[in-house]
Amino acid sequence: MFVLEQSFKVSYQYQVYFTEHLFDAENALLAQVFRSLVEPGYVARALFVVDEGVWTAHPVLGEQISRYFDTLKDLVVLAPEIIRVPGGEAVKNDRLQVERIVDAVNEYGIDRHSYLVAIGGGAVLDMAGYAAAISHRGVRHIRIPTTVLSQNDSGIGVKNSVNYKGKKNFLGTFVPPVAVINDSAFLQTLEDRDWRSGISEAVKVALIKDIAFFEWLDNQKDALANRAAEPMAHLIIKCADLHLQHIRGGDPFEFGSARPLDFGHWAAHKLEYLTNFELRHGEAVAIGIALDTVYSFLKGFISETDVLRVLNLFTVLGFGLSHEKLWEDDSRHLKAGLAEFREHLGGRLTITLLEALGKGIEVHEMDENLIEKAANYLKTYETSLRLSPSV
Amino acid sequence: MFVLEQSFKVSYQYQVYFTEHLFDAENALLAQVFRSLVEPGYVARALFVVDEGVWTAHPVLGEQISRYFDTLKDLVVLAPEIIRVPGGEAVKNDRLQVERIVDAVNEYGIDRHSYLVAIGGGAVLDMAGYAAAISHRGVRHIRIPTTVLSQNDSGIGVKNSVNYKGKKNFLGTFVPPVAVINDSAFLQTLEDRDWRSGISEAVKVALIKDIAFFEWLDNQKDALANRAAEPMAHLIIKCADLHLQHIRGGDPFEFGSARPLDFGHWAAHKLEYLTNFELRHGEAVAIGIALDTVYSFLKGFISETDVLRVLNLFTVLGFGLSHEKLWEDDSRHLKAGLAEFREHLGGRLTITLLEALGKGIEVHEMDENLIEKAANYLKTYETSLRLSPSV
Repeated sequence: MFVLEQSFKVSYQYQVYFTEHLFDAENALLAQVFRSLVEPGYVARALFVVDEGVWTAHPVLGEQISRYFDTLKDLVVLAPEIIRVPGGEAVKNDRLQVERIVDAVNEYGIDRHSYLVAIGGGAVLDMAGYAAAISHRGVRHIRIPTTVLSQNDSGIGVKNSVNYKGKKNFLGTFVPPVAVINDSAFLQTLEDRDWRSGISEAVKVALIKDIAFFEWLDNQKDALANRAAEPMAHLIIKCADLHLQHIRGGDPFEFGSARPLDFGHWAAHKLEYLTNFELRHGEAVAIGIALDTVYSFLKGFISETDVLRVLNLFTVLGFGLSHEKLWEDDSRHLKAGLAEFREHLGGRLTITLLEALGKGIEVHEMDENLIEKAANYLKTYETSLRLSPSV
Repeated sequence: MFVLEQSFKVSYQYQVYFTEHLFDAENALLAQVFRSLVEPGYVARALFVVDEGVWTAHPVLGEQISRYFDTLKDLVVLAPEIIRVPGGEAVKNDRLQVERIVDAVNEYGIDRHSYLVAIGGGAVLDMAGYAAAISHRGVRHIRIPTTVLSQNDSGIGVKNSVNYKGKKNFLGTFVPPVAVINDSAFLQTLEDRDWRSGISEAVKVALIKDIAFFEWLDNQKDALANRAAEPMAHLIIKCADLHLQHIRGGDPFEFGSARPLDFGHWAAHKLEYLTNFELRHGEAVAIGIALDTVYSFLKGFISETDVLRVLNLFTVLGFGLSHEKLWEDDSRHLKAGLAEFREHLGGRLTITLLEALGKGIEVHEMDENLIEKAANYLKTYETSLRLSPSV
């Protein structure tokens, strides 16, 4: 027996930019980004994939993109077609969408020195990022997230994916983008549900990592509920920063088992499926966080005052915190969801709970009776809210 | 405008083992490999994908695998099915093969802490590695290469791929395996063509990096042509070592432009397609190396003595060094192949030539007239061999 050892490190670096009206002729950011990325001697190509919802809400977007790139022809040439794809989770269930993008990469000669630029919500970025990652073993990918959720969380990280045979994110890779550009102007045209949805990931990361950020969220909850732009800008930068720190501080490609940013997500994933994605990811996450927060209280980790503070924050922000699928049949669905999550993790369960507001703790077992109690606690909480709407 | 900077490094480490009769009950290697890889507290699962050609040549393989894993049940459980796939390039053209593996990953609960083990030639490893890389954002992949080419080159590296719409390796990723195990017993049942084919990658790496290795190959050419096991074992270890060094010393995931291990490959890729993969990869590479070696001479970089030494080495090993597709229509196909390679690289050509035996040099232009001359040189060389078979 003879052995050769292989070991090496791969370095990744990218910027997450925050701007407004990215494609305005006067906004020099995107030109600068390409100037910093394209190697001397190359003329790169860029293929845009745009979320249909964004396209409809911004009818001049296509024209603006064309005009912007007219001035950059010595550096980067726009593909003759902008690909529009449906927004929302549906785009991740339809394998033909990935194929359309891969075919366009082929047709328009997008090579490993060229760029696939995706504009849209988290689902579109996940799907387009996957297509970019597998084409030519990875063409360069620039993400332009347009929702609160994708700007502060899913769009700035290193994962991409599509669903397969009813399993969420079954196919995907870990491949960092070469740049992320958050344009706050896109947030103005969001539906209320999408504005709100993204806030739950901020609450999540505050609850497990940063009590000061939680206090700030609690102070700003009315302004955020009323769609004030300034606290939202702060929220997104703060949450994005915590998220980026988590990635670089830990195990970016998740080779190990710890995934502490999954707080509240085991139940959320199950709820999304049970409701056929009628619940937005952020809405399901709010319920998942509420459930695991109540569970942390029932387990004796935190006080009921803490629980009620978290539930009140979500309620003021406009989230519903319960759903019949939680308690139906003695919480059968939740128990099944926990078993599936255990399998997803490779047989050994790791769940993040709260040992205090602002401090997560990992556990490897959950008590099914307490899960059922937590679900019923949320049911009672919501019922009491409906009975006394002044709360 | 505001910016958050992200940067991190991802560490990869894996062993390339050399053994004989891996699945013999007395061979403890595979058990040791799993003992070193499976985390405490886990019982992993293993799904095997086996090249149909290997399965046929080793009729007891399936039984041996089952028996071997019977003793490891506390550590790793074998999936109830061993998946057999066709060998050779065809397996990379058929998208249903990837789907079969992904479906089995789903059905047999192969998670991110479980193992997809592929046994076969380079094409099977490329395809199975791709399926492993995209399932659950990457399940752990162990490669057991069974040909000279895959044991010394393609099977030990960090790439995987399938073909798409007639484009070689159009879909794929860079994902290192968690272990590679080279079993020399598999080489004994190879056809002569496959035994020979893998040697051309050794000649390639010797010519551009290591004159001592080239001298050794030149000394051993008769023994290698006669299928002597010992020099082949040395060749594989030496070539694998040079290949692993190249990966870790440079740009493992090829973010930049330099790909010096592509010596001889631009013409080889074109020839494989033009012959509908009737030419094996290694056979096409031998012709590609011969062509670029002659070109290096015509360009004045090396002497004709050097050229004839290289051509003679290949000839003694049993390679044909010319093909009508090289010179047909004034080498039209080669000229087109060069243009395609330029596009594949993103517009800027980088070709490795020889400035001496054992020393590669990168150039960014090639002269079409000299390419045509080089093709005709090979035609004349082969014709003269046929006229004087004693050479």
